[in-house]
Amino acid sequence: MKLQTEPAVPTNCNADCSTAYEALRARYERVRARTSSLAEPLSAEDCCVQSMPDASPVKWHIAHTSWFFETFILEQHDPDFRPFNAEFRILFNSYYNGIGEKHPRAQRGMLTRPSLAEVQAYRRHIDERMIELLTRPQVLPAISALVEIGLQHEQQHQELMLTDVKHLLSNNPLLPAYAPETFKTDTQSLAFDWFEFASGVVEIGYCGNGFCFDNEMPRHRQFVERFAIASRLITNGEFLAFIEAGGYTDPAYWLSQGWDWVRDHHITRPLYWQRAEAGHSSIWQEFTLYGLQPLDLARSAMHLSYFEADAYARWAGARLPTEAEWEHAAAEMSEHVAVERLHPQASDQPGLSQLFGTSWQWTSSSYAPYPGYEPEEGLLGEYNGKFMVNQYVLRGSSCVTPAGHTRQTYRNFFPADARWQFTGIRLAKSIRN
Amino acid sequence: MKLQTEPAVPTNCNADCSTAYEALRARYERVRARTSSLAEPLSAEDCCVQSMPDASPVKWHIAHTSWFFETFILEQHDPDFRPFNAEFRILFNSYYNGIGEKHPRAQRGMLTRPSLAEVQAYRRHIDERMIELLTRPQVLPAISALVEIGLQHEQQHQELMLTDVKHLLSNNPLLPAYAPETFKTDTQSLAFDWFEFASGVVEIGYCGNGFCFDNEMPRHRQFVERFAIASRLITNGEFLAFIEAGGYTDPAYWLSQGWDWVRDHHITRPLYWQRAEAGHSSIWQEFTLYGLQPLDLARSAMHLSYFEADAYARWAGARLPTEAEWEHAAAEMSEHVAVERLHPQASDQPGLSQLFGTSWQWTSSSYAPYPGYEPEEGLLGEYNGKFMVNQYVLRGSSCVTPAGHTRQTYRNFFPADARWQFTGIRLAKSIRN
Amino acid sequence: MKLQTEPAVPTNCNADCSTAYEALRARYERVRARTSSLAEPLSAEDCCVQSMPDASPVKWHIAHTSWFFETFILEQHDPDFRPFNAEFRILFNSYYNGIGEKHPRAQRGMLTRPSLAEVQAYRRHIDERMIELLTRPQVLPAISALVEIGLQHEQQHQELMLTDVKHLLSNNPLLPAYAPETFKTDTQSLAFDWFEFASGVVEIGYCGNGFCFDNEMPRHRQFVERFAIASRLITNGEFLAFIEAGGYTDPAYWLSQGWDWVRDHHITRPLYWQRAEAGHSSIWQEFTLYGLQPLDLARSAMHLSYFEADAYARWAGARLPTEAEWEHAAAEMSEHVAVERLHPQASDQPGLSQLFGTSWQWTSSSYAPYPGYEPEEGLLGEYNGKFMVNQYVLRGSSCVTPAGHTRQTYRNFFPADARWQFTGIRLAKSIRN
Amino acid sequence: MKLQTEPAVPTNCNADCSTAYEALRARYERVRARTSSLAEPLSAEDCCVQSMPDASPVKWHIAHTSWFFETFILEQHDPDFRPFNAEFRILFNSYYNGIGEKHPRAQRGMLTRPSLAEVQAYRRHIDERMIELLTRPQVLPAISALVEIGLQHEQQHQELMLTDVKHLLSNNPLLPAYAPETFKTDTQSLAFDWFEFASGVVEIGYCGNGFCFDNEMPRHRQFVERFAIASRLITNGEFLAFIEAGGYTDPAYWLSQGWDWVRDHHITRPLYWQRAEAGHSSIWQEFTLYGLQPLDLARSAMHLSYFEADAYARWAGARLPTEAEWEHAAAEMSEHVAVERLHPQASDQPGLSQLFGTSWQWTSSSYAPYPGYEPEEGLLGEYNGKFMVNQYVLRGSSCVTPAGHTRQTYRNFFPADARWQFTGIRLAKSIRN
Repeated sequence: MKLQTEPAVPTNCNADCSTAYEALRARYERVRARTSSLAEPLSAEDCCVQSMPDASPVKWHIAHTSWFFETFILEQHDPDFRPFNAEFRILFNSYYNGIGEKHPRAQRGMLTRPSLAEVQAYRRHIDERMIELLTRPQVLPAISALVEIGLQHEQQHQELMLTDVKHLLSNNPLLPAYAPETFKTDTQSLAFDWFEFASGVVEIGYCGNGFCFDNEMPRHRQFVERFAIASRLITNGEFLAFIEAGGYTDPAYWLSQGWDWVRDHHITRPLYWQRAEAGHSSIWQEFTLYGLQPLDLARSAMHLSYFEADAYARWAGARLPTEAEWEHAAAEMSEHVAVERLHPQASDQPGLSQLFGTSWQWTSSSYAPYPGYEPEEGLLGEYNGKFMVNQYVLRGSSCVTPAGHTRQTYRNFFPADARWQFTGIRLAKSIRN
Repeated sequence: MKLQTEPAVPTNCNADCSTAYEALRARYERVRARTSSLAEPLSAEDCCVQSMPDASPVKWHIAHTSWFFETFILEQHDPDFRPFNAEFRILFNSYYNGIGEKHPRAQRGMLTRPSLAEVQAYRRHIDERMIELLTRPQVLPAISALVEIGLQHEQQHQELMLTDVKHLLSNNPLLPAYAPETFKTDTQSLAFDWFEFASGVVEIGYCGNGFCFDNEMPRHRQFVERFAIASRLITNGEFLAFIEAGGYTDPAYWLSQGWDWVRDHHITRPLYWQRAEAGHSSIWQEFTLYGLQPLDLARSAMHLSYFEADAYARWAGARLPTEAEWEHAAAEMSEHVAVERLHPQASDQPGLSQLFGTSWQWTSSSYAPYPGYEPEEGLLGEYNGKFMVNQYVLRGSSCVTPAGHTRQTYRNFFPADARWQFTGIRLAKSIRN
Repeated sequence: MKLQTEPAVPTNCNADCSTAYEALRARYERVRARTSSLAEPLSAEDCCVQSMPDASPVKWHIAHTSWFFETFILEQHDPDFRPFNAEFRILFNSYYNGIGEKHPRAQRGMLTRPSLAEVQAYRRHIDERMIELLTRPQVLPAISALVEIGLQHEQQHQELMLTDVKHLLSNNPLLPAYAPETFKTDTQSLAFDWFEFASGVVEIGYCGNGFCFDNEMPRHRQFVERFAIASRLITNGEFLAFIEAGGYTDPAYWLSQGWDWVRDHHITRPLYWQRAEAGHSSIWQEFTLYGLQPLDLARSAMHLSYFEADAYARWAGARLPTEAEWEHAAAEMSEHVAVERLHPQASDQPGLSQLFGTSWQWTSSSYAPYPGYEPEEGLLGEYNGKFMVNQYVLRGSSCVTPAGHTRQTYRNFFPADARWQFTGIRLAKSIRN
Repeated sequence: MKLQTEPAVPTNCNADCSTAYEALRARYERVRARTSSLAEPLSAEDCCVQSMPDASPVKWHIAHTSWFFETFILEQHDPDFRPFNAEFRILFNSYYNGIGEKHPRAQRGMLTRPSLAEVQAYRRHIDERMIELLTRPQVLPAISALVEIGLQHEQQHQELMLTDVKHLLSNNPLLPAYAPETFKTDTQSLAFDWFEFASGVVEIGYCGNGFCFDNEMPRHRQFVERFAIASRLITNGEFLAFIEAGGYTDPAYWLSQGWDWVRDHHITRPLYWQRAEAGHSSIWQEFTLYGLQPLDLARSAMHLSYFEADAYARWAGARLPTEAEWEHAAAEMSEHVAVERLHPQASDQPGLSQLFGTSWQWTSSSYAPYPGYEPEEGLLGEYNGKFMVNQYVLRGSSCVTPAGHTRQTYRNFFPADARWQFTGIRLAKSIRN
């Protein structure tokens, strides 16, 4: 199975490369346009505010993704380069110490200036220069790999735009919808099943001609003991059973640090769940990008921390998969990739389903370099490696992951207490020989 | 001297009150229009963001001042009252527990919805209803005092809008100006002088027919020992001498808590001062509502905490005045009230100058009830009294205090570490008989 | 009424001063011996631990009070002076920046070395040197005032030793008693009454030949409006009525900052109260220096913050007295001073009782310099003045205040949220003419 | 190589087990006596104070290790069991939720009562009961495994006693020595070398008849790519070169979280290093359990966080080993185990030296369950598993690890910012085929 759906430009194309370059240019325009379209339902105010240090304003995402092309491509390769605004070099640097100073992350929401309109003008300017550059045959070999990284980077930020704006809107007592829609909740999920895999040396990590991040390489061997993995993700209904069984009140299910987190933050349910009084009883609701909706028991439970995922697994007599197990299992199965939406639908596919397009899946693997890992050369060397501590790997992709930004070998990662991403649970278990 | 320049409506006018009511309506329209005009230089983004828990977004000020009229007047006295939006009752309640729930203060910046446009529509709606109410003779006696409070309250928020937006803009590395202007800095200040007052029983507090807040009453007697008070405020040049003499590095000048504050927050200069490298030397600059400007040594030093004011006074061999001393001295002098601007000008008036219209003046008096103080009756009883602890009284008014919102008896108050208000230093000293 | 019971040494005694000096020496020995005796029920471990940054270990008190004599007297006036241990100069400096470096307050509990035995040896050494010095006629005029300050300072620390060790023991789940005793709780309190005072200019502040602190001077005039003051302190029974009336759950009674404090710290009762299940019902108990005891409803309610005292007064339709009111009332009355104990007894004195010897009484007066205040000259100038911000004055004295360390003009002070001192409530009210 | 030096009791000994039981009893007495002897140089005060929430008072260690035997053995198996003091069950429970309530970890230093003498009496009582139990043949099969766990647990606490008391003494400005000794610093370290290992499936984890913790099992297969490991630990001299090369000031060497940690805590050197002025120059010193000593450049650098170890490795062009690499390398080598001391000596052994007895060695492996891991049954199931998040594995042992408490398969673990343990650096590197 090969999920890479967008054509990548070959790094060496000796003969006529024009088709490949045209494809790259078209792809550039398509990916960039999508970022703008994601901001369309939002006002300048919505795009400006930062709801917590972990999240960034949408306007910042719009600017930073342009800064990325300006800093890593135009500045190096455009002979006519002049900075659009010299101050943006600092304002929209995310974390690259090699580039120089940075505006502090927690202060991104202070930037009411430049305005959204100015940032959009900045974006248009960068696009003009990039399109121009992408038509110069002599420059293209030097930049095509960087362009691809820039587009992958932009797709990562597209997902973050949606998770960050979801968090922002959830902090508004009016609970506004990002997009209007009411979904029906009488859906049904397929039965839960286990798929078994034998022990042995397996290979994981990327090895191919397409794009991947440095953290997916090198492809290498790991020994996997016999295990089984769940056919689908845990549903809201199943997670509700954990709550009703006292899951959040019994330390026996929790990692020690997880239990401290539950008590310090008074955690009693997934991030976006709430309970509404309805006459004599009460019903569960879930805040979504479509606004507040009744909780659909058949859909996947989401916005769970690693701590919650691990506690659920323990309660259920199972565990989370390692990333090697997950990738090995995924490689064996073929899967229909879910259509991109703003909230996942219930599983309706037999086999090993919901690997992609529903919700990221916590693994028990701490984010660490693969044996022989080497960071990207140059300024982009800070992209991945420096985050390899105290984070846990998530595999698959979510309903808000852009189409084409999905790989079996993809390694997403977040701290154990992060919940604002679309993160859910796929169980695994060891099987004794 | 009577500073009350706006006509207040007599609480009892037996004969023809129509002129008084027309004046109130006109004043209502004038004050309300000024709030809107203050927001004009700002974008929706500027109006939405909250730069710190102490400051509120401009949009919130615009909405809250309308909420005040809706909640305390329309809801009680408009027979056709229907809430513009029932959720605004919670969203825009500042601190009135008697009204019910409140949106948390530190979360005011999360309200990207309602949009600025919606809040402006809310404002227009409240104005329509209020104007309509203000033409009904039978309702007017019951509401005119409340309208006056509402307008005074609105004027307080007009000043806060400017101090809060100044703080916000100062957090932006681009240091944008609220209003474009460059001012010349070769101004001169009058010589510093002392004015003496004999000991004796004096009366302070409001006693008249105009408007005052409950905390200014009752007028009562205090015994004042012999003292002298400074003819004008401390200038930037004088404060710079304190810095250059090591004022911020020697604990001998500081209250113990002030010294902790200096070290914990690495305080080395007034809030909006900064030092710019200029060739081989460096110059002092000050961020103002007109943007970054060279520091004018003749203008008043501002944006100083109580701790800094007290330390400066000790270094200068003087002290801060008590509020009784300040009010007693002010009552004896007549003064030209400075024209309202966005940044103060240097003193050019002989006599006891800069009492009003330059910068608020820290007194050494803790904010406390006057003997016999009784809070406003009803829901507005929470307006003042509950803040009477751990705050210090400021007297006078600043360059951004609205015209007509100035009284000798006016008691402003802030915690000892607050610096984002226009707050400066007038010295006093005791004189032995 | 003159409460000063210990003979002070006249600053000028031209003739034979030997009796006065002998008295001073005897008093030195008596006060110093009492500090040691207060530590007797405690183990070295009890004396070493610091239960919170506000409190100090008993061993530190024992050392610091000796350090005071060493630093301010022996070092200056003993011709044979040699430091007992040069490192103690830093270790046992409390807050005198003029002396040089200080061991950080919050780290006092780290000092397991020097041991208690070494500190006691240090103490004995200082006493030997001091006694020797106190017999030299030529030195005595220069040091007798300093000795008096040192003894007054020591008495202050005697009270702190008891409040700090009470706090420490209360943090131990075993709730050990400092001294064994069980007290009966069926005591009765005198009826509550009001004493009225007319308006007028009154004098407050110290003026006499005895000892007082710099903050009690100069004696000066204040104007006091007509008021009444309560005959005795509020009892546990009365405070319990406040609790049962929902006093801790209704913001209407609280200063805004007080209400934040109540909610942030989940305050529902005085510091040392607790509720014990007893079969089907529950009883209130109070932790005392005699251990856990049933709550005696007739004794004074204690260990209350300023916030709680103020809220109680508002609930009761009264207010706290100003310090001028308190001192004026106290000056008019004569009173039997309660015998020093470790927990107060109920009031059994007619008239204005419990001024002294029961519990400190919060006033509504912020701690500020008197008009014309001048700090002590020299190194001791840091003793009082630098604390005059964000603290409230307490008057009277408590059951653990040393005999002879009590004056009508005495000004104790603590922040509004402090509760570990013996602090209670005397009500006042304004009376309209 | 087999490091297990103490005889363990066979779980099944059908014939005459008396020798084995006698050995267990002797071992019980020996291990328990060592705990007491470790406290001998300390006063009751030293044993009582807690220097930070991560560290515990020595008295608490003494009590808790007895509590362990009382709770998990005597309470279940002693027919005459009566609690020594029922309150100790809560006071000295470390983290076992299954046992019930716990005294909060950060409050352990508040326990001035029970006194050290009482805790020693408690200890003697438990020892009497245990010795008595260890002579009953019918009970022994049921308890011998638990006794072994109790003794291993006690040895872990013996190491913690020394690390915790070292931290406490370092917080005292007097920098007292735990034990008097001055060591010479002109020692020499062996040359640094690399040992290579081929790729392949290796086995790690415990498999034998002796004791191990549940986290060391099951023995399982891992695939290891080709790598090399350092012959000895990084020395103080080598680490000093990192400092002098600007290691603490260049973010390029640091994990992003590590860099935040460096700046937030102003980290510029290993925990116990300090610089002393000496005339015109300055020298490096290191606080040790022998007091402050000149820094010996040949000894191992210690008291380093994972962040520092990782940064050093990156600077040195290497990396930290995984735990599989470390264990595989250790299994191939035989080693002289260093004699237990309070501070390590420089390496003088050829081959792969300093695996044990010098300093724990950070691995790049996050602490996680082995495939097929099952926690201990019953109340002791909380011993290890619940800590398996956000911690990194350390291998080997330190100079303060008790003799006989050392295994190739032993997994120690601490958070990435922990520095108060004896933790150092052994480098590794990947080798391409």
